[in-house]
Amino acid sequence: MPTPDLTAVVYNADGLVPVVVQEATTRDVLMLAWMDAEALRRTLATGRATYWSRSRKEYWVKGETSGHTQAVREVRLDCDGDTILLTVDQTGPACHLETTTCFDSREPLR
Amino acid sequence: MPTPDLTAVVYNADGLVPVVVQEATTRDVLMLAWMDAEALRRTLATGRATYWSRSRKEYWVKGETSGHTQAVREVRLDCDGDTILLTVDQTGPACHLETTTCFDSREPLR
Repeated sequence: MPTPDLTAVVYNADGLVPVVVQEATTRDVLMLAWMDAEALRRTLATGRATYWSRSRKEYWVKGETSGHTQAVREVRLDCDGDTILLTVDQTGPACHLETTTCFDSREPLR
Repeated sequence: MPTPDLTAVVYNADGLVPVVVQEATTRDVLMLAWMDAEALRRTLATGRATYWSRSRKEYWVKGETSGHTQAVREVRLDCDGDTILLTVDQTGPACHLETTTCFDSREPLR
């Protein structure tokens, strides 16, 4: 397997990159999370989605406490390198509100 | 039509919110862009995806020059209010590199 080119990732001023998470089978957009370089390294090494929690200021293996894990199928970088698209197999609801996605709990704005 | 609750939108320190853009029919994730309150207002009022360009520091009606417009079907806010999911009918390629999505131009990291 060729070594992925991690130098192409463009982090923001806080050292973070936004990560769009999409379910592989349903193709639902589940959530947006953030990674720093270490969270990305851990995600690639373990195949389990690992984020940086901006509120708790700690690494966060998705589902570690809830059991609602994300097994990573694919990791893609966008054209200008500053957004990641993670394709995952989601176990259980993705949202801490127990909804399928984080976009299900409110009426649409339009 | 009830007035959407725009007070629920949580903007970052720069007054911006990340916007995940998904194609309504193919369900491809097309791109990530950014809106301020005025870009969101214009998007809701016109039904044409309008973003804030962080590099050019100006409003940007998607497809205004390329013709690759995004007609907005739905606008959803996530559980904590700091991410928008835009469902659109995309005309032509979404990416300025002429690929279908902004995630198509590189080898996956995994």
